[in-house]
Amino acid sequence: LLGFGNVNRTLVQLLVDREKELHARGIGWRITGVATRRLGWIADAGGLDLALLRSERGIRADDFPAASSLSTNVREWLQTARADVLFEATSLNVESGQPAVDHIRATLEHGAHAITANKGPIVYAYDELRQLAEQRGKRFLFESTVMDGVPIFSLFQENLPAIHLKGFRGILNSTTNVILAGMEDGLSFDTALKKAQEIGVAETDARHDIDGWDAAVKVAALVIVLMGEKIGLNDVQREGIGKLTGEEVRAARAESTPYKLVCSAQRTETGVVARVAPERLPSGDPLAWVAGSSSIVYFETDIFPGLCITEVNPGLYATAYGMLVDFIRAVGK
Amino acid sequence: LLGFGNVNRTLVQLLVDREKELHARGIGWRITGVATRRLGWIADAGGLDLALLRSERGIRADDFPAASSLSTNVREWLQTARADVLFEATSLNVESGQPAVDHIRATLEHGAHAITANKGPIVYAYDELRQLAEQRGKRFLFESTVMDGVPIFSLFQENLPAIHLKGFRGILNSTTNVILAGMEDGLSFDTALKKAQEIGVAETDARHDIDGWDAAVKVAALVIVLMGEKIGLNDVQREGIGKLTGEEVRAARAESTPYKLVCSAQRTETGVVARVAPERLPSGDPLAWVAGSSSIVYFETDIFPGLCITEVNPGLYATAYGMLVDFIRAVGK
Repeated sequence: LLGFGNVNRTLVQLLVDREKELHARGIGWRITGVATRRLGWIADAGGLDLALLRSERGIRADDFPAASSLSTNVREWLQTARADVLFEATSLNVESGQPAVDHIRATLEHGAHAITANKGPIVYAYDELRQLAEQRGKRFLFESTVMDGVPIFSLFQENLPAIHLKGFRGILNSTTNVILAGMEDGLSFDTALKKAQEIGVAETDARHDIDGWDAAVKVAALVIVLMGEKIGLNDVQREGIGKLTGEEVRAARAESTPYKLVCSAQRTETGVVARVAPERLPSGDPLAWVAGSSSIVYFETDIFPGLCITEVNPGLYATAYGMLVDFIRAVGK
Repeated sequence: LLGFGNVNRTLVQLLVDREKELHARGIGWRITGVATRRLGWIADAGGLDLALLRSERGIRADDFPAASSLSTNVREWLQTARADVLFEATSLNVESGQPAVDHIRATLEHGAHAITANKGPIVYAYDELRQLAEQRGKRFLFESTVMDGVPIFSLFQENLPAIHLKGFRGILNSTTNVILAGMEDGLSFDTALKKAQEIGVAETDARHDIDGWDAAVKVAALVIVLMGEKIGLNDVQREGIGKLTGEEVRAARAESTPYKLVCSAQRTETGVVARVAPERLPSGDPLAWVAGSSSIVYFETDIFPGLCITEVNPGLYATAYGMLVDFIRAVGK
């Protein structure tokens, strides 16, 4: 487990909860390593104590005296842990995708499957990591990176063969969607932001969301993986919601044409045009009713003019579940 | 090809269109048999002439003088055709699921994969056919039976392992949805029905749709396959749209609480409660905006409180595409 915040903690919970289902698929597991900036690199190939890992108070390095916490880098840590699978859940670095890219590269070279909830590696190193995984006969999986664990990537890769994706539109950032809802309800931008932070949707530094970076990274990831187009983050036109006033947002809602931070990509003769920007949506638009922390993506394909996936009020397990499914996909029968 | 109406004709078109993608997956094909009530059992293990099969005027038995049309039943026909895969697209028999059940049983016993767009076999013989397929190492696939070819069944079977489906709500019958839209626009029930027939959505005998049978069969199929509950068609409470007047439908729309023929199933302590009935939907309901020939299903799971799949304005290829995907799933690498 690389990173031990909400996602990987919930994953441990899910692994315990679904022990029976995993067993039925021939899957056993133990956790042989945890690493965070604060803890350092903890590894014990025999397995770390689950009760300690799951304790309410959080974990400390000295909880695991038997575990080697001396390793100085990810490679040594993977070896000491004898890792078969890495669950990468560090936070996104928009500028470079690092150090997640290095973590995944090291994992695949070590001979383990790499499962990530971090969008950076897709945007900065998809082709390299995919090829590396193929060479090593391992999987590089990332279902949790867009729309929590809703199977967006696997839907196209496994269930929609020989289809041509022309483009998509979606609402993929919860923070901005919750802030816009708050503003519609009469709050100022700042108060709406504060409320989103209080309910745990927005992070302390929410500029990343507000300025559209999170949404832009998701758009780039979808374009790179599902449309096979090599775009960079700077190829996504990006405008955040910071300039919208409460008056504008409420007036738009009153006219039943609400503002949403819309993600979109469209294949054109000269390549894919990708964009993140606030848009006023007509009330008949399937994106218009998606409120709060719900998200949606509307795919346009040559077979289905509109194929739309909506995640309504995601639960606590939604993101970690995507990693569990990737785990089953990587090692199950 | 058993049945040669829109679905199997379009399938042939798609097989030709996607030849390159199929080839890339190691899949080659030829059509070695066509059977319809009118044509009889035509088979030629060497392959039937594609140009003739695809001719605009339709096909006649004497188009294929070299093909044996003497076989008297499905077993002989499958043998003469040396069928590896059957595409079953005969029309639904609500009372018994026949003769589709017999066709699929014969196909699996013959040693071929059985792919059907017919819901009957699921409702009347799912367990038997699934077990038979497993015994013979063949596949019994039916992705096209609900929501055209949108991957509903494979989504749960392949991409959502270890999830618990608590229930679902949906709009799964186009004919009634188009009729209700027409009535909202001011038409009488009869005129709205006639219009739906003119645009090819409703069949000549539309009672099957109007009385909710088609929707009920889909509900039963989803419950049987995705919820693992052995219910029969009579266990689905069923009320059609025949009693609704234009005034009621228009008044409901004017109050932004439109009528829809809602399909639903919910797991309870005493089993699954399944139902088809017209309901007035509040405007915030994701089902409310689904109009015309679009369809939707809103799944409630323990991981995703709401996971919603919408098919907007399905194209001509949507149903046949589901059979193509089943074909790739059955024989591809």
